[in-house]
Amino acid sequence: MAGNSYGTLYKVTTFGESHGEALGGIIDGCPSGIELDLEAIEFEMSRRKPGQSAIVTQRKEPDAVQFLSGIFEGKTTGTPIGFIIPNTNQKSDDYSHIKDNYRPSHADYVYDQKYGFRDYRGGGRSSARETASRVVAGAIAKQMLPEIKINAYVSSVGPIHLDTPYQDLDFSKIESNPVRCPDEKSAAIMEEYIRDIRKQGDTVGGVVSCVIKNVPVGLGEPVFDKLHAELGKAMLSINAVKGFEYGSGFSGSEMKGSEHNDLYNPDGTTKTNLSGGIQGGISNGMDIYFRVAFKPVATIMQTQDSLDNKGNITPMTGKGRHDPCVVPRAVPIVEAMAAIVLADFYLINKTY
Amino acid sequence: MAGNSYGTLYKVTTFGESHGEALGGIIDGCPSGIELDLEAIEFEMSRRKPGQSAIVTQRKEPDAVQFLSGIFEGKTTGTPIGFIIPNTNQKSDDYSHIKDNYRPSHADYVYDQKYGFRDYRGGGRSSARETASRVVAGAIAKQMLPEIKINAYVSSVGPIHLDTPYQDLDFSKIESNPVRCPDEKSAAIMEEYIRDIRKQGDTVGGVVSCVIKNVPVGLGEPVFDKLHAELGKAMLSINAVKGFEYGSGFSGSEMKGSEHNDLYNPDGTTKTNLSGGIQGGISNGMDIYFRVAFKPVATIMQTQDSLDNKGNITPMTGKGRHDPCVVPRAVPIVEAMAAIVLADFYLINKTY
Amino acid sequence: MAGNSYGTLYKVTTFGESHGEALGGIIDGCPSGIELDLEAIEFEMSRRKPGQSAIVTQRKEPDAVQFLSGIFEGKTTGTPIGFIIPNTNQKSDDYSHIKDNYRPSHADYVYDQKYGFRDYRGGGRSSARETASRVVAGAIAKQMLPEIKINAYVSSVGPIHLDTPYQDLDFSKIESNPVRCPDEKSAAIMEEYIRDIRKQGDTVGGVVSCVIKNVPVGLGEPVFDKLHAELGKAMLSINAVKGFEYGSGFSGSEMKGSEHNDLYNPDGTTKTNLSGGIQGGISNGMDIYFRVAFKPVATIMQTQDSLDNKGNITPMTGKGRHDPCVVPRAVPIVEAMAAIVLADFYLINKTY
Amino acid sequence: MAGNSYGTLYKVTTFGESHGEALGGIIDGCPSGIELDLEAIEFEMSRRKPGQSAIVTQRKEPDAVQFLSGIFEGKTTGTPIGFIIPNTNQKSDDYSHIKDNYRPSHADYVYDQKYGFRDYRGGGRSSARETASRVVAGAIAKQMLPEIKINAYVSSVGPIHLDTPYQDLDFSKIESNPVRCPDEKSAAIMEEYIRDIRKQGDTVGGVVSCVIKNVPVGLGEPVFDKLHAELGKAMLSINAVKGFEYGSGFSGSEMKGSEHNDLYNPDGTTKTNLSGGIQGGISNGMDIYFRVAFKPVATIMQTQDSLDNKGNITPMTGKGRHDPCVVPRAVPIVEAMAAIVLADFYLINKTY
Repeated sequence: MAGNSYGTLYKVTTFGESHGEALGGIIDGCPSGIELDLEAIEFEMSRRKPGQSAIVTQRKEPDAVQFLSGIFEGKTTGTPIGFIIPNTNQKSDDYSHIKDNYRPSHADYVYDQKYGFRDYRGGGRSSARETASRVVAGAIAKQMLPEIKINAYVSSVGPIHLDTPYQDLDFSKIESNPVRCPDEKSAAIMEEYIRDIRKQGDTVGGVVSCVIKNVPVGLGEPVFDKLHAELGKAMLSINAVKGFEYGSGFSGSEMKGSEHNDLYNPDGTTKTNLSGGIQGGISNGMDIYFRVAFKPVATIMQTQDSLDNKGNITPMTGKGRHDPCVVPRAVPIVEAMAAIVLADFYLINKTY
Repeated sequence: MAGNSYGTLYKVTTFGESHGEALGGIIDGCPSGIELDLEAIEFEMSRRKPGQSAIVTQRKEPDAVQFLSGIFEGKTTGTPIGFIIPNTNQKSDDYSHIKDNYRPSHADYVYDQKYGFRDYRGGGRSSARETASRVVAGAIAKQMLPEIKINAYVSSVGPIHLDTPYQDLDFSKIESNPVRCPDEKSAAIMEEYIRDIRKQGDTVGGVVSCVIKNVPVGLGEPVFDKLHAELGKAMLSINAVKGFEYGSGFSGSEMKGSEHNDLYNPDGTTKTNLSGGIQGGISNGMDIYFRVAFKPVATIMQTQDSLDNKGNITPMTGKGRHDPCVVPRAVPIVEAMAAIVLADFYLINKTY
Repeated sequence: MAGNSYGTLYKVTTFGESHGEALGGIIDGCPSGIELDLEAIEFEMSRRKPGQSAIVTQRKEPDAVQFLSGIFEGKTTGTPIGFIIPNTNQKSDDYSHIKDNYRPSHADYVYDQKYGFRDYRGGGRSSARETASRVVAGAIAKQMLPEIKINAYVSSVGPIHLDTPYQDLDFSKIESNPVRCPDEKSAAIMEEYIRDIRKQGDTVGGVVSCVIKNVPVGLGEPVFDKLHAELGKAMLSINAVKGFEYGSGFSGSEMKGSEHNDLYNPDGTTKTNLSGGIQGGISNGMDIYFRVAFKPVATIMQTQDSLDNKGNITPMTGKGRHDPCVVPRAVPIVEAMAAIVLADFYLINKTY
Repeated sequence: MAGNSYGTLYKVTTFGESHGEALGGIIDGCPSGIELDLEAIEFEMSRRKPGQSAIVTQRKEPDAVQFLSGIFEGKTTGTPIGFIIPNTNQKSDDYSHIKDNYRPSHADYVYDQKYGFRDYRGGGRSSARETASRVVAGAIAKQMLPEIKINAYVSSVGPIHLDTPYQDLDFSKIESNPVRCPDEKSAAIMEEYIRDIRKQGDTVGGVVSCVIKNVPVGLGEPVFDKLHAELGKAMLSINAVKGFEYGSGFSGSEMKGSEHNDLYNPDGTTKTNLSGGIQGGISNGMDIYFRVAFKPVATIMQTQDSLDNKGNITPMTGKGRHDPCVVPRAVPIVEAMAAIVLADFYLINKTY
């Protein structure tokens, strides 16, 4: 474990700082013979991209992926897929003011403590820009598993919650609004709220829900590598995530067994699905669903005290552009990590 | 990944079915020279043990650990610690009624689908009895890291919540009541509630909170192996867990950045700790705290429909003894997994 | 990596010191539904066992395997197979003379330096007794892959070499003599030589050759995990091994490309097999063959200088029984490790 | 395991085909604060480069490394080092004649069988060009461990052997001749031999010896991850390698224990070093030395039968430039892999 890889047989390793020359990664273990739809990859990248709408950060990141290996005549060859995403638009001088300063609730301080120094331009390695590489790997994982349908969406923004059960939502509406909330009425309220937060120079957190359909029975490993444990780790590894729950989640802890148990139909499906599609850590063929909590992004345009590396407390004001609410852009990242986890288990569990 | 190991340098592998000859495991990577306090290990085992109080299952599991290797003249030798926990009291005929039946919300069905057949006596490998081996490994991890203090406690039982911030609790009270809730008044209400649930032949879920003190700055790896991502995976791998949150958790998703950011003191500590002791996936020296949601145990003493392996729906009533609320016994398991995660990072990050 | 596990999907972890309570291990990832032939496992154990003939060590090791999990009604369940091999006959006082002494070319010194102290009774963890657990795991791997035929045999003992190409040998003769050399004439000379070495209180090395038939095309991974690289690592991990070569091996380094290239038959087989059944790290369907060099065992019955832990050189004479030539007993260990490597690749490569 | 990574804490992952856009890799786990000497990296690359002398392939590979991350202000940051080596000079049409043909003793056939199709331009992923990425990772590992001295050299070319013990060689002479043999007389004979082989349009194998000085006591893990087992795997993963031996190696198998045991000096060093610096899989502080056998490269300029993908045997003649003897260029690759293995163990074993 050196921290920058995920997976056993579908193994993704990423590299890159926010203001270095390029980000990128290696996807090792992708099966051969998959005809890659490069436009579909680009589409996922565009969903994660800053500047895509008025309610997300207006920073410019072109995010053009260059594939360097593992693809021949349009198809995966089974060898590692190396790719880079050049950082074309980064001006290092924008960040001189944080060179010797630790911004509150950023990773500046712990990186300096752990490594002795850091690339102080932007978030460096701890920047959410790293997730661009995950979206590439996830987009390819999705194409490896065309039968599996993964739909993430924003189910809350700050105090505004969409409580409709996912079964009653129309996922085709997710991309119809910049919030990525499939309920248009809620989406409008959320969007208004985010605009207001942006005007305040503040940020707000939210929740991304995710539903995965058509997962075969049997994915996941007892005991430590349960399917939901891996999904949880993958989601918690995304920047700003503070919590993960699947199926009944935290609210399930308030229930009685007589209410919570999912009774069977004769075909092995269940009448209810409080289990969230996973029993004993193994997929049971029902829809998998889970929720991921994101904290508000730490960079705000208001003035806050920061610490410098001499031990002085000094007021600091965010510069440039900020992301008032990260969750709309987190939707494709959640889907990407879900796809990577499934691809890995698919390869591990379809064996012998 | 074959599912039954956790960790990279402090690596725990477990084996054993609930009704086989024995459970056990191997702890590989424990440093040499640790004088083991066997009574402290036994104490942790007694906290996990069934039958320890009137509000947990009355099933008998003697849980005597036999160490077979890796210890010499009372000290760890640096070689793998093999241990077994014999299953002395299991009567296989108790379980004949579930041989061909899939109990709702158990792993019976998915094991049969995945493996073609299963050890149908009790939960087999999916039984929470497996966690006994984790408690052994965790107890040794605790002794490897004597400076780190891990305290877990029950913070909710069904609808009854203890909302006091952990800073205001007296952890020395945790073991003073069978619920393992440090607030005696809440403990009494929770205990009463569990007794009532038991009389109904029903079960109830709950939440275990955990606080870790004295963790040095710098544990955890970017990007995928963030400290909280590993803690989350470890907790989610415990039977019946449905959710994990750390620091501000799900409630943090409702906050604004201006409220959520933890401002620094000149010494690098923070005035607030909504980050939960972890920033950018790396410990920052503040207390680590997190919450783990447990669903109600699926085995109830009421009659519920089950599915047999011919596709027939048949009513089934739980036999023997049941565990009305798993969370008091889950407290030492949460602590054990936290200790294992920390021991692993301690070895990984204190390098070069 | 904590050193005591091998494999990714067929993962073997072992524990145990030569004079502790028991050896044992966990096989994680063995597929379900394999009807285990326990007598075949016992047979492999008897081939490794000391005292099986006049030319190997007369030490007694009963080596009775007790399976504790992962097997139900005679079949593997897909869950981890835990097993122990009790050390019933070990007298610790035999070893008091080496408590403070480092025997030449043993691991005593490096263990003390690395771990600060050691279990000084016999070889402790570095004893070849550890390989008993490997033989168990290998015997099960063999049963998982009944189509694959693995035959190892002794091809040299000290200066006596059997140079016959493996194609001209009758493998059914391997077990017909205590040396495990399929050529009876060579076997007789080797046996005579070993008897003479034993009388001198000395030891001698040798070479084990191994031939694997019926391996499907496609096992092995580019780039680092080439099939022969894993075979090499597995063999080099056996006590006393000093070298590994496959196909043409070291003698291939003296050849020209025009001589060494294996020309094809129309069906994809090759006319010659200097490649040893592996090209580019991937099995090509031809016989895999390799050779493993063993040094003479360090324990001799002659007097040699040793070092004590105060820095004094003191003469020491081996006590008890010694193994004049380890290679006959190494044959089943080589086969076991080959089976483990193949089982792992079989699971890894038969995917998607 | 997906095959394209090596290491646990110093983890190297490579990608790239010989005729794709670029090769490259990610070094994950390199400690922070190492001032990188980029010229030293370039020097190692120039030693591996084709066309460096008259006796190696005249193919042009500029091999300019571009670092994309993990380095800031000249020092490593502790985050992953991503790098690429563009393939600037590859003309794909050179290889049209092998599109449907399997060259003898190449990986063409097994890649097609394993993956269904392949990048047929040159060796694709199985090309030795992949080792350029290893040299980058090894050069950085060398700089991480400045106290450790690694010297590899050519000790045989075809039938010409340099039998001088390494202690009597002057390693400063290694780079003084194109063969990289420190004995100038042998070097001249070897060079003459290679020139003759080249004129024949043929190739020849050879042996690279490697000596590592100043390794601290205690590197290596019992039982499966012995230091020499990892070195062996790393060397066997290099293209064209057929064998590995350390210390006394295969010749040690002919010796008696009374001759082979390394007697101690009072300071823990040994009078002889047949152990090759490793006992029980753990470094003992003496020089580590080993030998690596390379077969002759399969591409020859003579006409040989090949197989096409319709099952026809057709004569084929190598085109372009060939490498008459790979071992001079293999010297830096052997050193690189040794450095990578040591860096990994250094991080794993200097813990707690």
